[in-house]
Amino acid sequence: MLMGIVVGRVTATRKDENLVGTKLLITQPINIDGSVLSNPIITVDTVGAGIGEKVIYVMGSMASRAVHNKDAPIDAAIVGIIDSLEGETLGG
Amino acid sequence: MLMGIVVGRVTATRKDENLVGTKLLITQPINIDGSVLSNPIITVDTVGAGIGEKVIYVMGSMASRAVHNKDAPIDAAIVGIIDSLEGETLGG
Amino acid sequence: MLMGIVVGRVTATRKDENLVGTKLLITQPINIDGSVLSNPIITVDTVGAGIGEKVIYVMGSMASRAVHNKDAPIDAAIVGIIDSLEGETLGG
Amino acid sequence: MLMGIVVGRVTATRKDENLVGTKLLITQPINIDGSVLSNPIITVDTVGAGIGEKVIYVMGSMASRAVHNKDAPIDAAIVGIIDSLEGETLGG
Amino acid sequence: MLMGIVVGRVTATRKDENLVGTKLLITQPINIDGSVLSNPIITVDTVGAGIGEKVIYVMGSMASRAVHNKDAPIDAAIVGIIDSLEGETLGG
Repeated sequence: MLMGIVVGRVTATRKDENLVGTKLLITQPINIDGSVLSNPIITVDTVGAGIGEKVIYVMGSMASRAVHNKDAPIDAAIVGIIDSLEGETLGG
Repeated sequence: MLMGIVVGRVTATRKDENLVGTKLLITQPINIDGSVLSNPIITVDTVGAGIGEKVIYVMGSMASRAVHNKDAPIDAAIVGIIDSLEGETLGG
Repeated sequence: MLMGIVVGRVTATRKDENLVGTKLLITQPINIDGSVLSNPIITVDTVGAGIGEKVIYVMGSMASRAVHNKDAPIDAAIVGIIDSLEGETLGG
Repeated sequence: MLMGIVVGRVTATRKDENLVGTKLLITQPINIDGSVLSNPIITVDTVGAGIGEKVIYVMGSMASRAVHNKDAPIDAAIVGIIDSLEGETLGG
Repeated sequence: MLMGIVVGRVTATRKDENLVGTKLLITQPINIDGSVLSNPIITVDTVGAGIGEKVIYVMGSMASRAVHNKDAPIDAAIVGIIDSLEGETLGG
């Protein structure tokens, strides 16, 4: 899983029928200190996350486990809201 | 999932029999502001997307869920047309 | 899926028994204009591709769908020969 | 699998019900000489790892095999504690 | 699959019970000319590979097919020993 910060939201009227009702948030990966690491992706929110919140998100086929629909084409999902991050990144 | 823009189309007469009838579009990942992030890939269109449209696409095995054929070797699929993107990318 | 060009061939006598009989081609990802994008990988040919041909290839577990053997450890397969690429890559 | 070093810990009260009880450690990939290679990710500990320990971790859907819960949305898991690394990295 | 060279070995006494008995080799991806392309990963050897040998390795869930244990959390496996590589890499 990755640490991320929610930075936006996507609206899509025309979409796969198994995505209807999902909340699509734009999330960027972050480091332990909260600094942003790379480009944003679209994540399905499953825990009630909001913009500006730090989250845990899962990628690939395992993301679909967080959504209770075995036909949903989902490869990224927010599965937790981060309370705190302890530790320090090593290296450059 | 990723935000993308459709930039082209692939034609292939000789192909896996489970790809016959699929529409193969070339898509590039984009940022919230619409700027292109990296190289193009081939995506199977499942929502009637056209060149120049901003789309949501899924990668990996979950992409195959958007196509109703359990034998199709598909690892990328367009699953939505983006109406609007709200938010702002953080960091450099 | 990715656009690629076949650039070589691998021979391996000692290998997983479920790879016996497969044709292993070395493929590099390309852009719409045919320029090479990054490093080569090994792909299993399922459509009769040859060196110098532009192809469509699938990666990850979906690649194994193109090979009719549920025990084959295959994570990349050529699934089409490209007739034509239309469009233009955006961005730098 | 990747060689890693555990550098931190994540606390998340609000999370997917199938993640309750998991220990979420922050791990960075390392080289044979122990030098850090890139950014940290969140891994589920399944072997009793601690901060500062060198570990083996698995990514993608196979990571979920290390956790005995078929509904857990997990894409990274620590599956071993490294006793020793022998060998030398080649190239630049 | 990727072309690789075996550069080392990992020892781990404390590990997932389904990894007991596996041989864990450190492998780096290589180009057609044998030059090293990037950082090392841990691969499960299934064909009797040794240090210095050029190998074919599979990544992701398909790697687990090379190991006859449906509970093993394995995302990278050596599935062949390369006899010869023909061809030439294109581009920069």
